[in-house]
Amino acid sequence: MEKRDLQHLFERVAAGEMSPADATARVQTEPFRDLGYAKIDTQRGIRQGVSEVVYGAGKSAAQIAGIIQALRSSGQRRVMATRVDRAKADEVASLLSERDAAEFVYHEDAEMVVVGGAPDPDGNGYVVVAAAGTSDLRVSEEAALTAEMMGSRVVRLYDVGVAGIHRLLAHADEIARARAIVAVAGMEGALPSVIGGMASCPVIAVPTSVGYGASFGGVTALLAMLNSCASGVSVVNIDNGFGGGYQAALIDHA
Amino acid sequence: MEKRDLQHLFERVAAGEMSPADATARVQTEPFRDLGYAKIDTQRGIRQGVSEVVYGAGKSAAQIAGIIQALRSSGQRRVMATRVDRAKADEVASLLSERDAAEFVYHEDAEMVVVGGAPDPDGNGYVVVAAAGTSDLRVSEEAALTAEMMGSRVVRLYDVGVAGIHRLLAHADEIARARAIVAVAGMEGALPSVIGGMASCPVIAVPTSVGYGASFGGVTALLAMLNSCASGVSVVNIDNGFGGGYQAALIDHA
Amino acid sequence: MEKRDLQHLFERVAAGEMSPADATARVQTEPFRDLGYAKIDTQRGIRQGVSEVVYGAGKSAAQIAGIIQALRSSGQRRVMATRVDRAKADEVASLLSERDAAEFVYHEDAEMVVVGGAPDPDGNGYVVVAAAGTSDLRVSEEAALTAEMMGSRVVRLYDVGVAGIHRLLAHADEIARARAIVAVAGMEGALPSVIGGMASCPVIAVPTSVGYGASFGGVTALLAMLNSCASGVSVVNIDNGFGGGYQAALIDHA
Amino acid sequence: MEKRDLQHLFERVAAGEMSPADATARVQTEPFRDLGYAKIDTQRGIRQGVSEVVYGAGKSAAQIAGIIQALRSSGQRRVMATRVDRAKADEVASLLSERDAAEFVYHEDAEMVVVGGAPDPDGNGYVVVAAAGTSDLRVSEEAALTAEMMGSRVVRLYDVGVAGIHRLLAHADEIARARAIVAVAGMEGALPSVIGGMASCPVIAVPTSVGYGASFGGVTALLAMLNSCASGVSVVNIDNGFGGGYQAALIDHA
Amino acid sequence: MEKRDLQHLFERVAAGEMSPADATARVQTEPFRDLGYAKIDTQRGIRQGVSEVVYGAGKSAAQIAGIIQALRSSGQRRVMATRVDRAKADEVASLLSERDAAEFVYHEDAEMVVVGGAPDPDGNGYVVVAAAGTSDLRVSEEAALTAEMMGSRVVRLYDVGVAGIHRLLAHADEIARARAIVAVAGMEGALPSVIGGMASCPVIAVPTSVGYGASFGGVTALLAMLNSCASGVSVVNIDNGFGGGYQAALIDHA
Amino acid sequence: MEKRDLQHLFERVAAGEMSPADATARVQTEPFRDLGYAKIDTQRGIRQGVSEVVYGAGKSAAQIAGIIQALRSSGQRRVMATRVDRAKADEVASLLSERDAAEFVYHEDAEMVVVGGAPDPDGNGYVVVAAAGTSDLRVSEEAALTAEMMGSRVVRLYDVGVAGIHRLLAHADEIARARAIVAVAGMEGALPSVIGGMASCPVIAVPTSVGYGASFGGVTALLAMLNSCASGVSVVNIDNGFGGGYQAALIDHA
Amino acid sequence: MEKRDLQHLFERVAAGEMSPADATARVQTEPFRDLGYAKIDTQRGIRQGVSEVVYGAGKSAAQIAGIIQALRSSGQRRVMATRVDRAKADEVASLLSERDAAEFVYHEDAEMVVVGGAPDPDGNGYVVVAAAGTSDLRVSEEAALTAEMMGSRVVRLYDVGVAGIHRLLAHADEIARARAIVAVAGMEGALPSVIGGMASCPVIAVPTSVGYGASFGGVTALLAMLNSCASGVSVVNIDNGFGGGYQAALIDHA
Amino acid sequence: MEKRDLQHLFERVAAGEMSPADATARVQTEPFRDLGYAKIDTQRGIRQGVSEVVYGAGKSAAQIAGIIQALRSSGQRRVMATRVDRAKADEVASLLSERDAAEFVYHEDAEMVVVGGAPDPDGNGYVVVAAAGTSDLRVSEEAALTAEMMGSRVVRLYDVGVAGIHRLLAHADEIARARAIVAVAGMEGALPSVIGGMASCPVIAVPTSVGYGASFGGVTALLAMLNSCASGVSVVNIDNGFGGGYQAALIDHA
Repeated sequence: MEKRDLQHLFERVAAGEMSPADATARVQTEPFRDLGYAKIDTQRGIRQGVSEVVYGAGKSAAQIAGIIQALRSSGQRRVMATRVDRAKADEVASLLSERDAAEFVYHEDAEMVVVGGAPDPDGNGYVVVAAAGTSDLRVSEEAALTAEMMGSRVVRLYDVGVAGIHRLLAHADEIARARAIVAVAGMEGALPSVIGGMASCPVIAVPTSVGYGASFGGVTALLAMLNSCASGVSVVNIDNGFGGGYQAALIDHA
Repeated sequence: MEKRDLQHLFERVAAGEMSPADATARVQTEPFRDLGYAKIDTQRGIRQGVSEVVYGAGKSAAQIAGIIQALRSSGQRRVMATRVDRAKADEVASLLSERDAAEFVYHEDAEMVVVGGAPDPDGNGYVVVAAAGTSDLRVSEEAALTAEMMGSRVVRLYDVGVAGIHRLLAHADEIARARAIVAVAGMEGALPSVIGGMASCPVIAVPTSVGYGASFGGVTALLAMLNSCASGVSVVNIDNGFGGGYQAALIDHA
Repeated sequence: MEKRDLQHLFERVAAGEMSPADATARVQTEPFRDLGYAKIDTQRGIRQGVSEVVYGAGKSAAQIAGIIQALRSSGQRRVMATRVDRAKADEVASLLSERDAAEFVYHEDAEMVVVGGAPDPDGNGYVVVAAAGTSDLRVSEEAALTAEMMGSRVVRLYDVGVAGIHRLLAHADEIARARAIVAVAGMEGALPSVIGGMASCPVIAVPTSVGYGASFGGVTALLAMLNSCASGVSVVNIDNGFGGGYQAALIDHA
Repeated sequence: MEKRDLQHLFERVAAGEMSPADATARVQTEPFRDLGYAKIDTQRGIRQGVSEVVYGAGKSAAQIAGIIQALRSSGQRRVMATRVDRAKADEVASLLSERDAAEFVYHEDAEMVVVGGAPDPDGNGYVVVAAAGTSDLRVSEEAALTAEMMGSRVVRLYDVGVAGIHRLLAHADEIARARAIVAVAGMEGALPSVIGGMASCPVIAVPTSVGYGASFGGVTALLAMLNSCASGVSVVNIDNGFGGGYQAALIDHA
Repeated sequence: MEKRDLQHLFERVAAGEMSPADATARVQTEPFRDLGYAKIDTQRGIRQGVSEVVYGAGKSAAQIAGIIQALRSSGQRRVMATRVDRAKADEVASLLSERDAAEFVYHEDAEMVVVGGAPDPDGNGYVVVAAAGTSDLRVSEEAALTAEMMGSRVVRLYDVGVAGIHRLLAHADEIARARAIVAVAGMEGALPSVIGGMASCPVIAVPTSVGYGASFGGVTALLAMLNSCASGVSVVNIDNGFGGGYQAALIDHA
Repeated sequence: MEKRDLQHLFERVAAGEMSPADATARVQTEPFRDLGYAKIDTQRGIRQGVSEVVYGAGKSAAQIAGIIQALRSSGQRRVMATRVDRAKADEVASLLSERDAAEFVYHEDAEMVVVGGAPDPDGNGYVVVAAAGTSDLRVSEEAALTAEMMGSRVVRLYDVGVAGIHRLLAHADEIARARAIVAVAGMEGALPSVIGGMASCPVIAVPTSVGYGASFGGVTALLAMLNSCASGVSVVNIDNGFGGGYQAALIDHA
Repeated sequence: MEKRDLQHLFERVAAGEMSPADATARVQTEPFRDLGYAKIDTQRGIRQGVSEVVYGAGKSAAQIAGIIQALRSSGQRRVMATRVDRAKADEVASLLSERDAAEFVYHEDAEMVVVGGAPDPDGNGYVVVAAAGTSDLRVSEEAALTAEMMGSRVVRLYDVGVAGIHRLLAHADEIARARAIVAVAGMEGALPSVIGGMASCPVIAVPTSVGYGASFGGVTALLAMLNSCASGVSVVNIDNGFGGGYQAALIDHA
Repeated sequence: MEKRDLQHLFERVAAGEMSPADATARVQTEPFRDLGYAKIDTQRGIRQGVSEVVYGAGKSAAQIAGIIQALRSSGQRRVMATRVDRAKADEVASLLSERDAAEFVYHEDAEMVVVGGAPDPDGNGYVVVAAAGTSDLRVSEEAALTAEMMGSRVVRLYDVGVAGIHRLLAHADEIARARAIVAVAGMEGALPSVIGGMASCPVIAVPTSVGYGASFGGVTALLAMLNSCASGVSVVNIDNGFGGGYQAALIDHA
């Protein structure tokens, strides 16, 4: 409950327009929704973007479709769902209303569902999503599409792994001018360190579970990124492309 | 070597002002210095702040003093060194030139040395440094002082651990209006998740090694932060207050 | 063998009603059952509840049905089995006697089988089962149903994760008045710490395997809970909803 | 702010005794203190015991003495501090006021400081603290003394490790009649499982760092306890005797 | 090449019965076979038992059948194969010669194939195989059958887990008189410690992967067993019933 | 771009054969390929061997076939793909052009595809690939075939595990004369240490995921190899037969 | 209480020589001492050896001396204490009675104290203690001396690490004829596997904390030993020379 | 015993110059030294270098001096000892004979002792030792000096960490022409991957324990190196500069 609403309530009581008991009940029954934490949460400084994201893993097609419908009917124009494979996406689409289904798009590379399309970019610059290898594609696209859904322009630099350092150096300019960079890598996770040394903006490192043996499902990449010798690098969970793209878009809109 | 410099070189050769051999040598011998990565690195978009930081752990007082002198005489006005205890700081001070010693300040809480003072804040807003407990003080102050040295205004919210959630809620306003937040916590590392749900800006989580037994020197806090259920949270290494403050200041200046 | 039984035996021998050899055999053949450890174990202070629980994972439908029949025919009115999916439950039901099948209920959310219904609550207060997210539902329901089967009244507070702290605060009253609380959470496992700070009763924390990447199948939540900064929090194994509900019901009946 | 206080405020405004603006400010400035979480926290249903505990590790003698004085002068009769070695305790004592020093007692086995003595027991039964070996003494005494300070009567069963099972069985009676049991063990951590099978009350297992090699500083005992085959066992952090005693005393007062 | 063979060779050369070149070749071409390590390896002091065991996991039915045939036709009377499920066993049986198939027996509990039957016991006493729970059955039977195939008499004590300590104590006599004991347990792995305190012979502990969550596929049981507070306990790999039974039979024949 | 190419470019500009703008574009568009890092990378001193290897895991048959075709049409004579099972290999073959399909060979043991055959050996000696058990076959063959594809002669020593040390000693000569040795082992990973003590050349240790329980998917073998008490042993990732064979072939051609 | 004692009791009651109440008390007060577990425990089939061992780590000299005196005065002829360094041993000696001090010997290599000397060997054969390197000496000597104190003859084979396999092979005979072998190794822990392949008796593997980096204080050796490819190998805790020697002596006396 | 020696022995027996018994004894007593494994071991193809290296950690100055004297008096010209700090080195020097002391040199950066100087380089090319940071100096110098002692010419490239990639690229030429490269790095351990992409020779990666928090004493760097995306990279133990230099020198002499 914001200050002006609270003061208004007291004024109405003072004016005799509302009984003390009713006013008490009014504060008691909605005390925290009125404080608006959740709303701030879903806006987070990005006016045009999606305000709620559906994490699709472990949810049935029916559940995902249900949440999409609910969000759309409560007035949210754009909805996205992560970690939805092709088969489940098809099933989700078949369960949507005609209006929602018409705006339904499945992004296969990112394994994401978008309803309502992406907004026009309104960030302060652009976000770079750089990926070490082609196997990191799904996570990278999840990051890129998330940032786009939040209103950022995205420059994709894929297959720029450090074992062929010249491929990365060829993009030195785009890296130097970015507002935020998402650096995605599996295996030894070295990409964010090299990029961190080339960039003047924050770098969000996303470890992927790409690799085998002692990559331990992305733990090696995660640890390497946490120990980056470059300043300005922070890290999100393994395969959390969404988290990387989200954080980068926040910075692009800061 | 940027495009215009390269074209200029070819034009001089075409004009007969330079021999092909000399031009070849010019490209061969300075290819990477001309790309200027290092310079970009040390500026990173922050015009007034420190451009180089000395990591003091494992360095002798003589080495730290030597680096400070070298940086200062090469024209850098402000220098800071992290992880320097009181005894080593005193020794560093005794080894500096009169001019440098006069501007030497030791920040005991942060265990940091600063020569040349902090710049006036020139960020776009302010950075919050929030800490769960009093034991997290050193890391929190390292983060706060780093951000100040980089030109950010810092609001400190200390001892706001989640087991007394009302202490944190009392600062909901300051959290909601920050440009970037550094959330410092040891033990179960829950603070960034709660703050992440209250904030609309990026949250940089800094796990600390505070705790015992199954805290494993900060690993538990680190893992908890990487798994935050709040969006917009990224993480740096255990006890890396510098990294948290640095990233936050970058965002404040984005 | 309790003292009075033993004394009674000696008295019968003294009275010539029983030969020394028979008395010896009587003690020899039932020495430990008579000590009653097992019986105490299965009663544990709860007079109306279930005395034996079937752990269904890794058991065939035939085995589960067999154990249920055996327990029921030995006089136990209520039987429950945990970790039984829908398909196996159907098979179990088909294998029961008519009488048992008539009292068979499958609780899909908890993935539990109950035969004989729940007793009327006879605890001293009520048990709160709080859960961070909807994905924690199975474990939470296993905890809640277990406590109910043991004679506790249960108040469910679901989807009260710490990233939306106001949802939890809205239930401050119910938390403050509970006799015991089961706090269920995956990912960063922060819920028990926040609840621990709001409650005046013991909190049993149940980590779940919900999450991905560095959640390590619930290990992160487990570690976070063990390091809770709140007093009065103890922890059971990952996904052990049964253990949490069991412990809470014991406390509610203390 | 509790309901009656809030209603009272509205009534005063309705009666013209308070202006709407003043009432607004009153709610805005003290919203959470009035909710009283902290107070509930420090009382936790135990009327006679200590309400605040000082964790002494990593705190200087001056800091510990300062906190003790502050708590005592704010009206708290009994104060205890854990993890204080003999030398630090002596220094703490020398820093206290005459009045506090007169009531200062150092418990060497528990490495705890108590000022103001223990309250008379007012629990519903008694708490058993059982320990596997003599090396577990410090942790066991920390648990026992904590429970006593919180108003529980404590029965100590020490050196009842499972490799000499008869020593434990000799106390079957005391175990069967306890209201709560703290089971302390290092090495293989088997004690809580055996006790759990003998008891009808909740068992709080406390792993200790006693052991070498693959005991990994208590991790093995911790894991073993989390996997106890006995129902009704929950676990606290390694060496957390305080946590075990605290939880047990809560149950004894439930 | 044993001493007497070598001396014999020199004597033949001295006697002119063999040329130096031939003798040289003789030593050069068979130096290690003559040392006979492999033969000793396959006999290991047990005259009547199996001399070679087929580890069936990861081998096709055809491969297993092939090895059995080869061993049998090279004169080995009894052959056993571990970790063979029912389907694969049926296929193996169908691939054997008529003679071998006639002596083929599949032990479903142990998931083992035996061809040629078990020898009559010829050890010095008997081996106890004790198991904590019914879920440990496969591993326990693998241990028991292995020991029987190596010529040991086996006493099986199943479902004697430590949470019902009286069930174990009822067998104190059989434990006290054993020549070697295999103690099989998953979850918290406490059984060998309790048995170790009751026995006067070596105890071979076999951790099993029974459990969930923080049992980590048997690692918890393994660690607990390595940290046993009882003397005389040694440990083999997780689920290695064969190893436990083999070691116990060696001791029974020592 | 090599020096002579660059000088040639300048000479053409000086001679007026090329405009400065065109020359600039020429350097700008291929700046790093011309620096030759990639080419050096794909040749690595081995003139006759494969220059590019396709890592088949996680790639579809269509993708693998596409890459093979691309490499072959760009002039590369020999192509190999690792980690391709029989079914996928058949599909790859069906997707190749007639010319490529004619030279397609599937090596089942190594699970590798080779198009264009192996070159004649041109190393300085030979490479030994030694393997502890038959279960290590796939990894060993991947190593052997890789080395052969890179132009090395390979001597295979299989089933020479350390528990039958005489089998290994029988090959002392071949080990002593090798130019490089790949030692492949799972379980306890002891083979490289024993071979390291017998050899005078570098030993590349390849841990395999063969084993169960505490072998942790090859981690135990990996750790053992890193701790080898023999000098001259270095290690590659778990199951990385390709890496072992590649490194060994490099040494054989040094 | 054994059967005959119990029957005797009933007979006395039947004969009126004892009242039922007295008999009841007799059974009640000594139920477990009469079962005799502890006595069996301290004898464990070895008539001449030590029956109680003092684990010296973490005990003060005064405590060790006190326990030694207590054991000696209760009639135990020989006492040994492990993990006592030279300084503490000297202090222990100075605290003993004249009689005990006269029989006090400090074994520096084993860091063990022995009072009362070793018994004459009375095992069935001999125990081999084999060690990989000179750094494993303390643990090896702890094993050897323990076995000697328990009445076994010990053959020491030191510095027979697998990187110089010929040194081990030179002792093939002694290994082949042993009754039990303790194989001690740090680093990669390969020794027990090679010895296991050469021996026909049980091998007790003792990992040591010798090594650095990825040896993880003996964990690597421990894991390697648990995964031994040789049959007949079991393992004790890191640096547990006592456990290895104890188990081996039990087997030697089986 | 080499073939010609063995044949010679038979010939002497055939000629009656030696009795069969004496010849037998001759073979029996020196069987394995004559097989020459150890000698091959200490020569390993490098004719001028050191044949034995003293691992100084955990050895006293007296022990180190003793071993040096023994090796020197047995005819070995050059001896080196690793991991000897300045104080211990001084003590070693004071214990040597005059002749040895005259040739004693302490290399402070490498913490190594060398007696007898380094040989003239006789490899086929040169070895590069590249290090990421100044903190990696000790390990790097241990590698470099080891390679020099084994007869390799060494090119040192220090402080070429990947966060300032241009510093590394400036040395592209030296990297491209090396025979073997030792790449030393702590923290995220990315250096070997970048170098691996630039080099055409084997790269031996040496992780160092430099770092803090989630660097886990070098484990992160170790894992990153094992997962290198560049081919031709193998890895040695943490801080094992000796192992890296040794392996590189072997390759340089291949």
